[in-house]
Amino acid sequence: MAEEILVKFYPEGKRASIERGKTILDAALKADVDLAALCGGKGFCGKCQVVVVEGSENLSPLTEVERKHLSAEKLELGFRLACQAKVYGDVAVKIPEYSRTGKQKLVIMGVEPPRPLKPAVRKIYVELPPPTLEDPLADDLRLINALREKGFEVEEIDPEILVKLPDLLREAGWKITATIIDGKKIIDVEPRDVSEHCYGIAVDIGTTKLACFLVNLNTGELLHACGTMNPQIPYGEDVMSRISYAMEGEDHLQQLKKAVVDGINGLIQEALTITGVRREHLYELVAVGNTAMHHLFIGIQPAYVGRSPYPPAVAKSCALPPQAVGIAINNRGRVHVLPNIAGFVGADAVACLLATEVHKSAELKLLMDVGTNTEVSLGNREKILSCSTASGPAFEGAHIKYGMRAATGAIERVKIDEETFEPEISTIDDAKPRGICGSGIIDVIAEMLRVGLLDTRGRIQRKETTRIREGPQGLEYVLAWKEETPSKAEDLVITQKDIREIQLAKAAMRTGCEILMKRLGIGREQISELIIAGAFGSYINPESARILGMIPEVPLERIKFVGNTAGSGARMCLKSVDARREAEEIARRVEYVELAALPEFQEEYVNAMAFPHADISKHPEVMSKIKAPVTTRIYREST
Amino acid sequence: MAEEILVKFYPEGKRASIERGKTILDAALKADVDLAALCGGKGFCGKCQVVVVEGSENLSPLTEVERKHLSAEKLELGFRLACQAKVYGDVAVKIPEYSRTGKQKLVIMGVEPPRPLKPAVRKIYVELPPPTLEDPLADDLRLINALREKGFEVEEIDPEILVKLPDLLREAGWKITATIIDGKKIIDVEPRDVSEHCYGIAVDIGTTKLACFLVNLNTGELLHACGTMNPQIPYGEDVMSRISYAMEGEDHLQQLKKAVVDGINGLIQEALTITGVRREHLYELVAVGNTAMHHLFIGIQPAYVGRSPYPPAVAKSCALPPQAVGIAINNRGRVHVLPNIAGFVGADAVACLLATEVHKSAELKLLMDVGTNTEVSLGNREKILSCSTASGPAFEGAHIKYGMRAATGAIERVKIDEETFEPEISTIDDAKPRGICGSGIIDVIAEMLRVGLLDTRGRIQRKETTRIREGPQGLEYVLAWKEETPSKAEDLVITQKDIREIQLAKAAMRTGCEILMKRLGIGREQISELIIAGAFGSYINPESARILGMIPEVPLERIKFVGNTAGSGARMCLKSVDARREAEEIARRVEYVELAALPEFQEEYVNAMAFPHADISKHPEVMSKIKAPVTTRIYREST
Repeated sequence: MAEEILVKFYPEGKRASIERGKTILDAALKADVDLAALCGGKGFCGKCQVVVVEGSENLSPLTEVERKHLSAEKLELGFRLACQAKVYGDVAVKIPEYSRTGKQKLVIMGVEPPRPLKPAVRKIYVELPPPTLEDPLADDLRLINALREKGFEVEEIDPEILVKLPDLLREAGWKITATIIDGKKIIDVEPRDVSEHCYGIAVDIGTTKLACFLVNLNTGELLHACGTMNPQIPYGEDVMSRISYAMEGEDHLQQLKKAVVDGINGLIQEALTITGVRREHLYELVAVGNTAMHHLFIGIQPAYVGRSPYPPAVAKSCALPPQAVGIAINNRGRVHVLPNIAGFVGADAVACLLATEVHKSAELKLLMDVGTNTEVSLGNREKILSCSTASGPAFEGAHIKYGMRAATGAIERVKIDEETFEPEISTIDDAKPRGICGSGIIDVIAEMLRVGLLDTRGRIQRKETTRIREGPQGLEYVLAWKEETPSKAEDLVITQKDIREIQLAKAAMRTGCEILMKRLGIGREQISELIIAGAFGSYINPESARILGMIPEVPLERIKFVGNTAGSGARMCLKSVDARREAEEIARRVEYVELAALPEFQEEYVNAMAFPHADISKHPEVMSKIKAPVTTRIYREST
Repeated sequence: MAEEILVKFYPEGKRASIERGKTILDAALKADVDLAALCGGKGFCGKCQVVVVEGSENLSPLTEVERKHLSAEKLELGFRLACQAKVYGDVAVKIPEYSRTGKQKLVIMGVEPPRPLKPAVRKIYVELPPPTLEDPLADDLRLINALREKGFEVEEIDPEILVKLPDLLREAGWKITATIIDGKKIIDVEPRDVSEHCYGIAVDIGTTKLACFLVNLNTGELLHACGTMNPQIPYGEDVMSRISYAMEGEDHLQQLKKAVVDGINGLIQEALTITGVRREHLYELVAVGNTAMHHLFIGIQPAYVGRSPYPPAVAKSCALPPQAVGIAINNRGRVHVLPNIAGFVGADAVACLLATEVHKSAELKLLMDVGTNTEVSLGNREKILSCSTASGPAFEGAHIKYGMRAATGAIERVKIDEETFEPEISTIDDAKPRGICGSGIIDVIAEMLRVGLLDTRGRIQRKETTRIREGPQGLEYVLAWKEETPSKAEDLVITQKDIREIQLAKAAMRTGCEILMKRLGIGREQISELIIAGAFGSYINPESARILGMIPEVPLERIKFVGNTAGSGARMCLKSVDARREAEEIARRVEYVELAALPEFQEEYVNAMAFPHADISKHPEVMSKIKAPVTTRIYREST
């Protein structure tokens, strides 16, 4: 028997027994404590910092990775990376606030165009005449006939109900409520008139967050919305690291599936508790997510999605029994999952298109669903092109030295004085700054460009201010002095490397926009609306985004933030089978553009790396507003 | 803890421990020994005779019931009725041959009109182009597109296959065989071309016997047919006693369901072993049975079927997952159960009508499916009436003193000399006579009528012959002297009571015929064909049946024996979805006549008790041939 070692976590006081030689991160996962591991324990994010308070002698020696991520000061204070430190005897560690994934500002709502209510599930009250010698009709036909009079042509009765039907009908005195799915299958029979209790759940499975919506299917009313972090995060921050994890071990796929399903079941429980709705009255769950999340939710190995040519295993919408997925709603109900378009343009993108109605528009619209992957779609009712860009988690704080998610203490807005270069920051919950979230990063870079602290190639410029200084990895800009932070341990800086990360991220999504526009042969003037969707998107300052060149230059009034439209699309499909048909049509109509397959991709990408773009003629308004020295040139493919 | 007592059974040597105070029959059921208990242990069939070989002092005293059923001779030899003798200490008993349900002559085949092959399940071989960057189509759509080219518009993929699809396709090198049900749902994907392995099972669930047919769904060929006794028999011989048993205890319904499902699974195993077909290549099972058998097979409480107004719980055909029923075929396949017409006219009657094509006939046909219940149908393509008659198990040997099933040693044909009254008998397998089966009973009574040993009221006539003698219950006719029997213990006689039993049985089915004919306003001349279906029916001498008046008098050449057409109809539906639709139409078209609800029933029944019928004008030919004194008069309802 392997020796078991005890790891305690403060301040929670949680504990876990693990095998000798496993890491503190392994113990944290087992103890279910909140510890950030953005890279999935691979050692390159440096986020899983913990302070050893007892038993440091029982840990493996410091690794190179730890020396790289932890300052000398932190090393002295007993900091370790949980993914690196192996445990050979009992230890106790403290998890600092900034190593938490944290309670986040979750945007779960999004715009939703109204549609006629047409749910898949209906509940119908009927009173049946009891059988007599003159009318000895079978129980099933008696029920079916009564429902026919109400306009339902039932073809099938769920086997579980079928075997109980005679007793169900008689115990109810022949006055029952039948629950019908798709207008043709009876999935429940209850005594009395309980037709008002007909509910469904829409779920948006984001790589980072889960959002859950409890909807009254009789009225279309949204009764409760709630969200939580995707419990798969400890297994890997982004889609690719989840795919890697799923492939690496025998039961990893099931672990990931269980994590997300448990997370959704938790949200369902929350919604039920708050609304008082009974679980057996939840008849359908409609789910969306990107292709990898979709596959993991259903339990399909996403390995091939992560490997060229990135084909999804399943692109068609599918209907599954709740117990096959593990979802805790009425067992005879259904889980409906929206269709995918491609390996990296999933059901969430379909839902976004449905909710933003790009497919119905006469004018051209550019839709960007910003997330760890940013799906870009361009089109109208005639034609829609879509692509996926690996914008990465930089906008969510990963790979950024003091990056963090949009949680308490995150710097979310920044202004820089043109003369003094002093920043004016605002933080979430007005707390002391402990890091910087996506919208803050975009703001600070846009401001640095505006005031001339950056050139268009993204190089930090030396200026006469203590805010610009030489750091261990080149020049850096100090956003907050350590005295202003809660830990008082380190200055919050933006490093040259941080700016490179953002450049890579924004270049990715911009490349998607440029390539789709070229494919359709249109210029920025023809974009009637630039729609930014996604939880993260809602907080972006559009002006800053335009300065960075994350998006093509269109007038600010044409930029529209729509929030979490993946969730909106899921709700629409929950409430209307016509919307599902529309979603299926969208998924099959959209022309997917595989950027990696295009010869022009490399050139477009390099050009998009510049702020706002190597071709400054694309950004007349931005260029008129910023002081950044123009040091870029347009790359042309050699012919 | 209750005291456990050991009961041993010879010659098997099987043993069972039972609670003090339980009966030998309880022990026999527990030990799974073959012991006839036609009445289900109620004490009125007298068939569960056993000989106590050890521990007779440990049994309860002889009951009145035993004294009634066992001769003084048998009592002296240590005979007891297993259902009466309670056990208070260890005992050993021997089960004589005639107390066995026995290995029976099972008729499982029946006529089957040819139909175009159109099975629900098809297997299609396709070679898919592997995905490339230029063609990164999803796995599911790739498969669906390839199948579309072969003419199948797939809408759905079974969840179990869906989650395995990416690996299945790649491991097979994109060359696979898809199994499609209903032309639209993929239920299996296998590597290589295995499209030739596509099989199904048709099952006829009789109250007495099970018949099973393994069919190649690519060719329609019947590969194997086999049958066995319905393992529910120990719980009750006829439909009503099974229904009673199902209602009496908490888990009785499940016991009965398990018994029949196990029986069917055993037949499937036999068919697989003999043909070499693999279980996962059995995709569909189509079942028929009377309404109670249908309900017990699915696991529906048949209580209400057995109670006025006798409504079935389920009359529509239904599709069930094999594991919901417990049937061991491919899990993603299907169990299809044919529709019922009424509580006592079930899916087997529908199958019979389908196979005999009464519903397509221009001329009127009279169909009788003879069994413990005899379903009578009369009609043509315009109109069909059906009713059920409680003919009972007398024709199968129950309630007949020396009655037995059609097993080895059963007297099946009888001739009686007009002068000497000496019988000429033939037995099954030419063995020594040990009892008399249905066709023998009909023959002997017809012969007794012909030679004048019976009057038309069914009273045995005194004649100058030792064959007619006074027995303990009135006059009896000796069919075989004890020296001629294998046990040499008793003479084989037909008693007055036996004749009464047959009168009741034949009156029941004849009443059905008469009432349906009256309802349609037709006479016997308009019956173009009189079809006798059922395993039992095949062995009946039509002339004898006509003499008894079991059937209306039609010319012998119009009488047709078709065998087990319930099985034929099941096979037809297995091989053709069009036949299923036809079956559903038949079930809904047939007008069920509830005999018990009719005021004329009593009068018709009494008239039908006479041989051949109280109204001798209905039987001119029979009356010209028999010497039976006419002693009956037509009963008229008082007005």
